[in-house]
Order: sequence, then C-alpha cells, then structure tokens
Amino acid sequence: MDRTTPGNAHHIVAKYDEELRELSTLVLRMGGMAESQLASAIQAVVTRDGALADTVIAGDKRIDELEIEIDTVCTRLLALRQPMAVDLRAIIAAFKLGGDIERIGDYAKNLARRSKVLTEAKPQSAVAGMPRMGTLVQRMIKDVLDAYIERDLEKAVDVWRRDGEVDLLHNSLMREFLTYMMEDVRTITPCTQLLFMAKNIERIGDHATNMAENVYFLITGERLVEVRPKTDDTAAAIAADADMDPDAQP
Amino acid sequence: MDRTTPGNAHHIVAKYDEELRELSTLVLRMGGMAESQLASAIQAVVTRDGALADTVIAGDKRIDELEIEIDTVCTRLLALRQPMAVDLRAIIAAFKLGGDIERIGDYAKNLARRSKVLTEAKPQSAVAGMPRMGTLVQRMIKDVLDAYIERDLEKAVDVWRRDGEVDLLHNSLMREFLTYMMEDVRTITPCTQLLFMAKNIERIGDHATNMAENVYFLITGERLVEVRPKTDDTAAAIAADADMDPDAQP
Repeated sequence: MDRTTPGNAHHIVAKYDEELRELSTLVLRMGGMAESQLASAIQAVVTRDGALADTVIAGDKRIDELEIEIDTVCTRLLALRQPMAVDLRAIIAAFKLGGDIERIGDYAKNLARRSKVLTEAKPQSAVAGMPRMGTLVQRMIKDVLDAYIERDLEKAVDVWRRDGEVDLLHNSLMREFLTYMMEDVRTITPCTQLLFMAKNIERIGDHATNMAENVYFLITGERLVEVRPKTDDTAAAIAADADMDPDAQP
Repeated sequence: MDRTTPGNAHHIVAKYDEELRELSTLVLRMGGMAESQLASAIQAVVTRDGALADTVIAGDKRIDELEIEIDTVCTRLLALRQPMAVDLRAIIAAFKLGGDIERIGDYAKNLARRSKVLTEAKPQSAVAGMPRMGTLVQRMIKDVLDAYIERDLEKAVDVWRRDGEVDLLHNSLMREFLTYMMEDVRTITPCTQLLFMAKNIERIGDHATNMAENVYFLITGERLVEVRPKTDDTAAAIAADADMDPDAQP
C-alpha cells in the first residue's frame, strides 16, 4: 500500500516506521509486565506472600499507564499519518491488545488482593490447582506476544485453541471447591475466594484468546471467529459442564 | 478542525458526516440491545423463565455482529477519511464503546445461562437482591448511552460516579449468599451460581463506567480517570469490604 502523502519525504516514512515499531515495543512491554504480574500473583497465592501481593497490586498502575501511552501513540499515528492496510490494522490491533492486557493486569491485581484475604481455613489441596491453571494462561500470554512480534499465524491460532483446556481445568477446580465447601462449612469463605480466583485466571485465558484473535486479524485482515473450527468441540466439552460454569465461552 | 483533504468537495464532507452519524446509530442500537438483554436476563432469573433465558442466549449473537459492524465502519472511516480532533475521538470512542457493550452482552448471556441451572434449592430471598442490582446497572447503561448521543458531560460523570453504589450493593449480596451457604449446605451450589451472577452484574457496572470514561474523552479530549474525584471515597468504602470483594475496582 501507499504510505506517502504529497510532499512526504523518505525520512518521514522512516520516522513513521519507527513510530510503528515503537508501538509494538510498547504493546510487548505492557504484555510482558502483565505476564510477570500474573506469575507473581500466583506465587503470592501459593506462598501466602503478602509483600509480593502488595508489589503486584502496586505494579498494576504502570500497566494502566502503558495502556494510556499506547492509546496516545495510536491516536497520534491515526491523526498525523494516513495508515492504510496492514499499518492501519497494526494500530487497531495495538489499541485492542492494550485493552486486553489492561484487563489481564486487573485480574492479576485481583488475584493478589484475594491472596491477602485467604484465611488459613482453606484446604491447601484446593490452592494446588491454581498454579497449574496459572501456568497454562501465563504461557498463552507469552505465546500470543511472540505470535504478535513474529507475526506468527500458527502460533496465534494455537494459543486461541488452548483456551478450551483452561476452561476444562477451571470447571474441575470449581467442582473441587464446591466439594470442600459441602464437606466443611469453615472452608466456605476461603473457597468462595478461590472460586473467584480461579474465575479470574479463566478470564485471563479469555483475554489471551481475544489477543490471539487480534493478532490473527493483524496478520491476515480476517477474523479468526469466522473460521473458528474447534468452537463446536469446545462448546460441547463445556456444555457437559454447563451446570458448573455457564460462563465458559464457546 | 479541518476535515477536507485536497480535492474533497462539499458532498464528500456531507457523506463523511453521514458516516459518523451512522456510526453513533450503530453504537446506540448495540447499547440498546445490551440494555434489554440484561433486563430480560434478570427477568429470566427472577421468573425462572427458561424460554426467555434461551432468547437472551441466542440474542447475544446479534450484539457480537454489531461490534464487528462498528469495527468495520471505524476502520473504513480511518482508512478513507483523515479524521481529526473530535471526529477521530468519535471513531476511537465507537471502537471502545463497542468493546464494552460486547462484554455487557456476554455477561447478560452468562446470567441467562446461569438462570437455567439454578436449582430449586436456592433461597428465594437471595434472588430478590438481583433485580435491584440489575436495575441500577441497567439505568447506568441507559444513561451513558444518552450521555453519548446528547454529548452530555454531566450525565456521563454521573453514571461514572454511580458505580460505587453497585459495588457496595454487590458486597452486601455476597455476604448474604455466604450466610445462606453456611446455614444450609444444600444452598451451596445455587448460591455459588448466585455469587457469580451478582459478580456478572457488578462487572456490567464496571463496563458502563468504562463507557462513561470514553464518552467523557469523546466530549473533552481528556481522561476522566485523571480527574477522578470520588475514587478515594469509593476505594475506602470498598476497602472496608476488602475481605468480601477485592475485585471491586477503585
């Protein structure tokens, strides 16, 4: 496509490319932060490390600031350049990726907050499932960011497919927590916190999936949803657990 | 600001204005749908109307399609016009409003799904709190859409302030559900569904708040977050309930 406007000299186009690279760098940095915020939050849950939880809670501010930075760069690029085709998609993708990463950061912060109020009464084995689910979604975030930078379509689709795994693991965790609550009423309050923590991680998986769809759109200009092949399988797998988690998105 | 590009004739500018109006109309229609989806979902919960719940679940598809339509119009406008200042903000706002409304639609769908699996064992009084919270957020959606169309800054800020109310009502509902679960283990499963349903409604409130921030940005070009006055009060009010709902966003 044609990036030049009347009177634009070569160095302006170069500057433009530099700005687009700056934009990807911002998205990548923001995503990396959210990824490590999630890792720390999970660790804070498992090790009951209140100080670490506080670091995560405080760290979310920086992620929010990065989203504003990304929005500002996108707006400037849209206003000053006339992005076409893939460049326009790159800006739209950055907008949307920023939004999803911001939400992932919020969920990591919420995990940290909840880790601080988890009473001792909680069954340790209930907490054990958390890191496994956390590692799954953390890898999804890492891989979707790689797919974004490497413009790797296959990797994006792969991340997008893995969300079903997260949903199934989430469902089994929910069942486990319910069982604990029924066996021992003293675990009701902590298990309720755990239910919401597991849900937060499951939601992070949904956002990583959105990110994969945006990377797919960035690379191909088409919507992954339109060609979604595994939807029905996933939907079926989840329908079986509908009584447990109707939130699971087909 | 200058909307014309070299060679642009008056009728092209007129066409452009028409496209911007079309965009607002799409956002308004999508928002109206989400609002009524929420109303129907709450009704389905209260009246245990499975058929109504199915209508809501099926209806979400149309909302998703509208988001794609909005994205397409935005992308076309960005590619073919050179939107500046308020026009550019209008397109960015439409993008973001579409994203929030899509999530609101998802939450309404999830409410409908959960309403179908609510067992009889649930305490009726527990369900009673749901419509009150639902009405609160439903009015937030209605008002933020009015603020959007009327470019009414005060109304936008008012919606944004009301989210604290929703969070507090949510916290008291959570406490209520926990009490039921501890009093009667048979209510644990239904009350867990109710916990998530209340959380869904609380999240819808968060998205209505995001929408208010976007309308504020659209009108002023500034970020409401930066001048947020009530944050601390709200944060404090919620901190008191931190043990109950650390998700509540300051």
